[in-house]
Amino acid sequence: MNFHYPNGRRYVPAAKSTKTIKAEKKWSYSNRGMTLEEDINETNEFYLEHGIASIHKKPTPVQIVQVDYPKRSAAVIKEAYFKQASTTDYNGVYKGKYIDFEAKETQNTTSFPLKNFHEHQVKHVEKVLAQKGICFVILRFSATEEVYFLEAHYLLSYWKRMKDGGRKSITKAEIESHGHHIPLGFQPRIDYIKIIDYLYNLN
Amino acid sequence: MNFHYPNGRRYVPAAKSTKTIKAEKKWSYSNRGMTLEEDINETNEFYLEHGIASIHKKPTPVQIVQVDYPKRSAAVIKEAYFKQASTTDYNGVYKGKYIDFEAKETQNTTSFPLKNFHEHQVKHVEKVLAQKGICFVILRFSATEEVYFLEAHYLLSYWKRMKDGGRKSITKAEIESHGHHIPLGFQPRIDYIKIIDYLYNLN
Repeated sequence: MNFHYPNGRRYVPAAKSTKTIKAEKKWSYSNRGMTLEEDINETNEFYLEHGIASIHKKPTPVQIVQVDYPKRSAAVIKEAYFKQASTTDYNGVYKGKYIDFEAKETQNTTSFPLKNFHEHQVKHVEKVLAQKGICFVILRFSATEEVYFLEAHYLLSYWKRMKDGGRKSITKAEIESHGHHIPLGFQPRIDYIKIIDYLYNLN
Repeated sequence: MNFHYPNGRRYVPAAKSTKTIKAEKKWSYSNRGMTLEEDINETNEFYLEHGIASIHKKPTPVQIVQVDYPKRSAAVIKEAYFKQASTTDYNGVYKGKYIDFEAKETQNTTSFPLKNFHEHQVKHVEKVLAQKGICFVILRFSATEEVYFLEAHYLLSYWKRMKDGGRKSITKAEIESHGHHIPLGFQPRIDYIKIIDYLYNLN
């Protein structure tokens, strides 16, 4: 049995360690083996290290039920459950402004299913917009590796369309027309701050 | 054996359930049985419900090692460890501005020990200030139930004093002179937004 002590990094099984992924990256700009979450975490690290923005992924919410305190070693959580997040996954600060977003990917090629979002998150988005925060979603079509930035008020209108009995997804054409394509880069991988600069003209 | 299914609320042992705490509150404005964290969570809920601000506590960061997927029931985390937070605990948006803070309490009566903060959190505070976020700490002296709002740049200067070989705490006199006393209220319990309004003149 292997023990995995906390080291401040997400546990990655040995078969596909962080090192392997980094090595792959030297060979190709393509997204092989990188999830959207990994790409965005790398992007946020880049922003943080270069003093561009301070934006973080929130920890996965967990309901802790039982904790053991073995002698001479760290507390071990022995029983816990995943909880539904009540907010979006990412938030932080850029030039004094509050930044808040969710990132989701789909295998679909012609539309983005709204089931990727939860009612709670949509309510959160509404609250953030009411407080004049900068709020958006980053959507990825995995098959083509296309990434889009879509302002949150569009998400709310498509969500409303669904609630009113309309389609349960956003068509790709709608995303292309209202969203902003983010070209994949090397460093940072997904330069969404550029879109924020363009849209909100921050100084 | 009791099962505690996730319901979006922190697990509270039966001996001191949320209901008991709420019942107590009807009898007294005092802070009996309420931790600083509970007070701040209630305050944030009040702000959220009344459309005043959208500020949340981040989930406790946990390193998940082993998860079981029993048939017909929710995934169970069987082995996990607490990780040190790389940011402060609370953040959100108020009038478009990024709000970021940490809340800590001490049993001491004459000073606030700096060991309540971690190097990581201090680094985070520096990054937030560099991005012009509104950043502060809420400090409570448990014995007297006094709560203070201290702007983050003061924390940084006391931290530097410690690093330079000086005292390992902030004296109560320093907190009284540079901080802002937050009187305990009923709803909200700890009205820190009032101090933000006073200090930053947001409109």
